[in-house]
Amino acid sequence: MEIKIVRNVLEANDKLAAEIRQRTAESQTLLVNLMSSPGSGKTTLLEKLVPMLQLKGHKVGVIEGDITTTMDAERLQPLNIPVVQINTEPFGGDCHLGAEVILPALESLKLSQLDQVFIENVGNLVCPAEFDTGADLNVVLLSVTEGEDKPLKYPLMFRVCQLALISKTDLLPHLGLNVNLLRQNILKINPKIGIIPISSNSGEGLSAIADWLSIRLKRAQIQNIAR
Amino acid sequence: MEIKIVRNVLEANDKLAAEIRQRTAESQTLLVNLMSSPGSGKTTLLEKLVPMLQLKGHKVGVIEGDITTTMDAERLQPLNIPVVQINTEPFGGDCHLGAEVILPALESLKLSQLDQVFIENVGNLVCPAEFDTGADLNVVLLSVTEGEDKPLKYPLMFRVCQLALISKTDLLPHLGLNVNLLRQNILKINPKIGIIPISSNSGEGLSAIADWLSIRLKRAQIQNIAR
Repeated sequence: MEIKIVRNVLEANDKLAAEIRQRTAESQTLLVNLMSSPGSGKTTLLEKLVPMLQLKGHKVGVIEGDITTTMDAERLQPLNIPVVQINTEPFGGDCHLGAEVILPALESLKLSQLDQVFIENVGNLVCPAEFDTGADLNVVLLSVTEGEDKPLKYPLMFRVCQLALISKTDLLPHLGLNVNLLRQNILKINPKIGIIPISSNSGEGLSAIADWLSIRLKRAQIQNIAR
Repeated sequence: MEIKIVRNVLEANDKLAAEIRQRTAESQTLLVNLMSSPGSGKTTLLEKLVPMLQLKGHKVGVIEGDITTTMDAERLQPLNIPVVQINTEPFGGDCHLGAEVILPALESLKLSQLDQVFIENVGNLVCPAEFDTGADLNVVLLSVTEGEDKPLKYPLMFRVCQLALISKTDLLPHLGLNVNLLRQNILKINPKIGIIPISSNSGEGLSAIADWLSIRLKRAQIQNIAR
């Protein structure tokens, strides 16, 4: 009986995720789901990356997911972009964002005017990987302070992502981390994943992310025109 | 209907947690549940703390919880103490340890010969706080790289813990973290919580944790004798 209910929840989620993909395809908007442990630097990355994407002419929006507080949405206010805050506390303090909360959040954005919408998921390296948000791309951040073993210990997250960002590389001189081993462990779980080392402090890797996203945005727009 | 099922799961968990408390009271064993985000330093802390507790004459065991791999249990092998590894992957890659997996793990340890058993929970700042493991004490680690805002954004974790360890303080010179603000935010969520800044690298705070645990172990043993 329990299994049946879990399946129903996942099936309902997948239907809504498909609906989200149809809408973002119609509006030619790339939906990018950022996931990581708490404090790996998702919000700081958005603060630095969004202006770079704006310089490339992208119109960007953000869906902020947190259990509680609007602190992250407030941090993005200086960017002067549309930001929707989802708090999962009314839904029982959910540890992830499901398609059922992303769909109404997208509806409150003017999708036809946006090239790219980022979802900043709840800080959690486990549960968000289990629920399809309807995003076109899943991106995981793993900070250099978290250790080389994390891809092996939290494999689903690295399996569902197309891009892994090794964040906070400015701290590497103060740590004993073996970056090559971390890369190997990521690729052991997902040999097709892209890997970019980044630092929102030093700026390392940020233009590489902007390029990576631009290519995928163009690709998605060409595919939609070809339909 | 969904709510009813969630209640059943939590009720079943609470019954097993009560059974765990009865058994650890009988054997006069202090059960301590360590929780944190992935990579905040739970295993490294155990590597350093257990020898200090052994010097105080405590007999220590560990229950290692991970979705997959036995990497953490292997890291503890040099300590030459009883270690049980729980992998939640067969249970659907669970994002937390429930009392239903702790009880059989405890049964595989010789509790009557142990003063103290640590549970190293799955790395996750959200879900483990929602499930009573039957532990006498809940302890959260938050590393200085995770930011001052985390207690406000993940409040349940800080509400259910008696002790918060601010970890990796050796990295403070390389970060812009405001430790006082972090302390204030922890106390805003839970004014009664103990706070100890620690570094498993420099050794800061480790003897303070050992003392904190010793006091509680003695207290628990006196209470059991008085029964």
